[in-house]
Amino acid sequence: MASAEFWYEFASTYSYPAALRVAALAAERGVSLVWRPFLLGPIFVAHGWRDSPFNIYPAKGRYMWRDLERTCGAMGVPLKRPEPFPQPSLLAARVALALDGDARSDFSHRVFVAEFGQGLPIGDRATLGALLTPCGVDPAAALARAESEANKARLKAECAHAVEIGIIGAPCLVTADGEVFWGNDRLEQGLDWAADRSLGAIR
Amino acid sequence: MASAEFWYEFASTYSYPAALRVAALAAERGVSLVWRPFLLGPIFVAHGWRDSPFNIYPAKGRYMWRDLERTCGAMGVPLKRPEPFPQPSLLAARVALALDGDARSDFSHRVFVAEFGQGLPIGDRATLGALLTPCGVDPAAALARAESEANKARLKAECAHAVEIGIIGAPCLVTADGEVFWGNDRLEQGLDWAADRSLGAIR
Repeated sequence: MASAEFWYEFASTYSYPAALRVAALAAERGVSLVWRPFLLGPIFVAHGWRDSPFNIYPAKGRYMWRDLERTCGAMGVPLKRPEPFPQPSLLAARVALALDGDARSDFSHRVFVAEFGQGLPIGDRATLGALLTPCGVDPAAALARAESEANKARLKAECAHAVEIGIIGAPCLVTADGEVFWGNDRLEQGLDWAADRSLGAIR
Repeated sequence: MASAEFWYEFASTYSYPAALRVAALAAERGVSLVWRPFLLGPIFVAHGWRDSPFNIYPAKGRYMWRDLERTCGAMGVPLKRPEPFPQPSLLAARVALALDGDARSDFSHRVFVAEFGQGLPIGDRATLGALLTPCGVDPAAALARAESEANKARLKAECAHAVEIGIIGAPCLVTADGEVFWGNDRLEQGLDWAADRSLGAIR
């Protein structure tokens, strides 16, 4: 079966519509997905940025929010800008990484809806706890696993790996043959690539 | 009739596939197009960039060239990286602005094909002259008009106007109601918007 990795960052605006779309798009193409949370912070710091580029370059920020409004409008999903932007995403990323399979994708989906659909603060333990329960996960246990030294180190390694494979932003779709497709607007192309290459391997 | 503006920069890589696609996409939707050449330089300088961001941030540059290879591959058009990159685009932009209607779009299309399809140096007067002749334009006369003080001032005003309406990169599709759609990957969305809004106005 064809597979692809979906790399996402909870503070990333375009990761929101991508997280809402990617599972159905992958299923349509028979591509199995691995959800890989990571942090853009280390990549931005390497660029000399200490904040979101959408804040550093206000004209880019204005464009992005309007573009995202149009994208969400076309999808029929709400958009509410969280304050502050970007939201602190470290804890959410650690929690997501500490979960497996469906629990990870379910939780991640809920975090994005809370953050950008409802404008809730996703840096709060209480917010994250409330999102874990409907995933069938015990919040206290998940938070404890998330904050273990092993899991913290694992997230650091994930971020280093992202840089190594050429990830420069979020979201990204990464195929088994190492192609990186950056952006919510590249999901279809990346998943088509994953599906086509897999067929090619079988023939 | 619905209309939209196509803003492009000759040094911009993604303006190449966009310039090759936009006329047919607009015609399919019954949208009339105005081709508006401009320069990204002043916008980049305002960001503190003295070079293409694809050179300043090498990982971004590597991603962009691979992404563009895939885009051009899917379109079945050649891609040859011009050296140096970015190419000096000032003279080509002045010439395009000094032309009208079909001559402007025809010339612009030829410049992009020469630059990114064949890797030719588009800063050269000889290259531009050779591209003007098949457009039915006298090269010497066009170059003289391009370098008149009035035309130079007009290009400066175009760049200032681009910033005012929220253009942050190239290419952009700008609709009559002031929406800006940035990127080769937003052409369809921008032209759909232009066509829909126009129908709304007629009803």
